[in-house]
Amino acid sequence: MRVGILGTGVVGRSIGGKLAALGHEVTIGTRDVDALMARTETDARGNESFAEWKGKNPEVKLGTFADAADQGELVVNATDGAGSLEALHSAGEENLDGKVLIDISNPLDYSRGMPPSLIVSNTDSLGEQIQRTFPGAKVVKALNTVTAFVMVDPSLVAGSDHTIFMSGNDSQAKAQVGEVLRSFGWQHIVDLGDITTARGVEMYLPLWIRLWRTFGTPMFNIKVVQAQD
Amino acid sequence: MRVGILGTGVVGRSIGGKLAALGHEVTIGTRDVDALMARTETDARGNESFAEWKGKNPEVKLGTFADAADQGELVVNATDGAGSLEALHSAGEENLDGKVLIDISNPLDYSRGMPPSLIVSNTDSLGEQIQRTFPGAKVVKALNTVTAFVMVDPSLVAGSDHTIFMSGNDSQAKAQVGEVLRSFGWQHIVDLGDITTARGVEMYLPLWIRLWRTFGTPMFNIKVVQAQD
Repeated sequence: MRVGILGTGVVGRSIGGKLAALGHEVTIGTRDVDALMARTETDARGNESFAEWKGKNPEVKLGTFADAADQGELVVNATDGAGSLEALHSAGEENLDGKVLIDISNPLDYSRGMPPSLIVSNTDSLGEQIQRTFPGAKVVKALNTVTAFVMVDPSLVAGSDHTIFMSGNDSQAKAQVGEVLRSFGWQHIVDLGDITTARGVEMYLPLWIRLWRTFGTPMFNIKVVQAQD
Repeated sequence: MRVGILGTGVVGRSIGGKLAALGHEVTIGTRDVDALMARTETDARGNESFAEWKGKNPEVKLGTFADAADQGELVVNATDGAGSLEALHSAGEENLDGKVLIDISNPLDYSRGMPPSLIVSNTDSLGEQIQRTFPGAKVVKALNTVTAFVMVDPSLVAGSDHTIFMSGNDSQAKAQVGEVLRSFGWQHIVDLGDITTARGVEMYLPLWIRLWRTFGTPMFNIKVVQAQD
């Protein structure tokens, strides 16, 4: 499958590298290709430059947001939440129409320091905003509740015995995303319902961030357990 | 130990009944004792009247909010989030000073229909509002992330192998609440940090509500699992 990934950060690289390793044809999109490839320093979080990562992952193609969205039969939003709508506008509504759009972004606001707050209100979510703004796309919120390494390799935590969520209006789109998640190793996938349920997984982030601080590592997740388990 | 419980709903009854069964001296407080005891019908959710429940639990005393808070060495806020601050004002700041106050309330707003939104902003929580309003109380947010039956009997779900959280500024208060939680059967207790971490557990509720809808039962919880588990 051809996949277009928007965003060159750790999430975009993790998803792109994994999909390429699984045999998919991956194009990662960014705002300004030349500026991105010109940077050689590690970022504030100690991640290698994209150029360095790209050298190790030659099978992943690089282009603009519009190139990636145009190339992809499936599109993944792996941009920062604060810039997601702008990135998707750059990608072009015509390049998203009719396609499944996996939205991994989190609407976090770091402008007032740590811990971040959310840039959406209690009665909305970034997933819904994206669906409203691009009604032709089939938005499926997923994977935003775990750190990038765990997204693409759930076996890193507790033998994969933990939960990932999906929210979206289109059942077929969610079935397709479910296949992608299973190809990553996810065994326990909960379909929460329509895209309004993205509020739940986005508003979970403040707890996730506190757990990260408590444990000193983002290598954790939650497992939903029921009475009959 | 003498415990005062504010709120006569399912949460207050569950906590009160459990603490009484464990040998504590429990007083449940309400706004208007006569009005409460005059009601004999079941409520909108099918719960028996408080008067009926009280008849089966004669060891639990009933009084005003102020009576309950005055009687308790430990005080539990089991009122609806929308009415918690008013109930605590009725209980009286002087009856809360210096005491551990377990805050179970959730700041849910049902006024715009289901699913409820939150009545606090992304940069605040009801737990923090209560701590700010009653600075002499030692507020510990706990138990708000599970349904009432599970609060007092975690073994009802997955052999008690799941997680409960605590948030609060006072370490000794959290140690005492931890003892109460263990007496209920909780084995996996995560201290998230100071009272600002109540934002995390309160903002988790929208996900919890969606999971309830998905499963058709509130008899579930989450277990936090780490890489080394």
